[in-house]
Amino acid sequence: MIAAKVIDSIWSTRKADSLIGMKFMMVEVLGGIDAGRIIIAADTISAGIGERVLVCTGSSARKMLDREDIPIDAVIVGIIDEDCKF
Amino acid sequence: MIAAKVIDSIWSTRKADSLIGMKFMMVEVLGGIDAGRIIIAADTISAGIGERVLVCTGSSARKMLDREDIPIDAVIVGIIDEDCKF
Amino acid sequence: MIAAKVIDSIWSTRKADSLIGMKFMMVEVLGGIDAGRIIIAADTISAGIGERVLVCTGSSARKMLDREDIPIDAVIVGIIDEDCKF
Amino acid sequence: MIAAKVIDSIWSTRKADSLIGMKFMMVEVLGGIDAGRIIIAADTISAGIGERVLVCTGSSARKMLDREDIPIDAVIVGIIDEDCKF
Amino acid sequence: MIAAKVIDSIWSTRKADSLIGMKFMMVEVLGGIDAGRIIIAADTISAGIGERVLVCTGSSARKMLDREDIPIDAVIVGIIDEDCKF
Repeated sequence: MIAAKVIDSIWSTRKADSLIGMKFMMVEVLGGIDAGRIIIAADTISAGIGERVLVCTGSSARKMLDREDIPIDAVIVGIIDEDCKF
Repeated sequence: MIAAKVIDSIWSTRKADSLIGMKFMMVEVLGGIDAGRIIIAADTISAGIGERVLVCTGSSARKMLDREDIPIDAVIVGIIDEDCKF
Repeated sequence: MIAAKVIDSIWSTRKADSLIGMKFMMVEVLGGIDAGRIIIAADTISAGIGERVLVCTGSSARKMLDREDIPIDAVIVGIIDEDCKF
Repeated sequence: MIAAKVIDSIWSTRKADSLIGMKFMMVEVLGGIDAGRIIIAADTISAGIGERVLVCTGSSARKMLDREDIPIDAVIVGIIDEDCKF
Repeated sequence: MIAAKVIDSIWSTRKADSLIGMKFMMVEVLGGIDAGRIIIAADTISAGIGERVLVCTGSSARKMLDREDIPIDAVIVGIIDEDCKF
């Protein structure tokens, strides 16, 4: 997984039918040489802008959703505790 | 997913039979340290050159298509709303 | 796999139900041009901070766990012997 | 997919049994910040050295082949038309 | 696949049960902008230190092994012929 910060929400009206109702957040990778990488992740746990999150990518991201047939390759799987230092 | 801008279409006459009839677009990653990365993505939602899109990669990309047996690792899954700032 | 060093543990109280009880460690890639890349990996073999580990990523990471339905894309699969030089 | 240029063929006499008879080409990624990345891709459509091709990577690459049980993570899926500018 | 050079063997006594008996080699990517990237790959074809090899990554790497339930994301699939120039 990747530690990242939620920086914005992304809106897409014209999209795949299977994505309707899904919320997308823009996150920025935190720490290390990948710091500053931007990923668009689906969010099902109501992460807020500014929160630090764990993002799972690839085929494993689909395991977070109820359906296997959905074109999603990144999803927020957890919110890092505020008092967790790194 | 990746936020990217459609910059051109790509034509390939000699290709895998399973790709016949499929439309390919060259997209350029937007934002962050990956800005400027080039990906060739299949397009099934008629994205236009200049539009900003969401691109899904890896095995999840195949979920956008009707068939699972197709050698595609990137597909446009949504068009980012014009008034969406980032 | 990737050779990495465990640098910290990561705490996430609000997370996917399927991740409850799972331990997450922040690891830093060792060696080569990726040195300094940060990954958050699940740990089921009790790696300690400071130890060098082997991290498996992608869909293969799920093979380390008892369940296939879990949103995990990186897992510690082994601890590199202390007297192993590289 | 990735747009790349075929730069050489690769010969491997000692290899996995399942790869016997397969042709491997060294390709170089074209355009963007990944330009100059080298990938070894299986070729089943007779791409020639110097031709520009589309390369599919990851699990989707196996969809180009007749068999699912083959350790291949990159395959040439199309040849870009010569008069296609980018 | 990736062209790489075997630079060392890696020893891990504490590891996943499914990895017992498996041999791991540290390889360094050859050529292009990824030159110098370090990967730890399983080896089932007895590659020697100093040899140039083809490494398959991701879910396809598991196809090289007899078992699908093993947390391996990179495996040596062939040894590049000594007289193969690139």
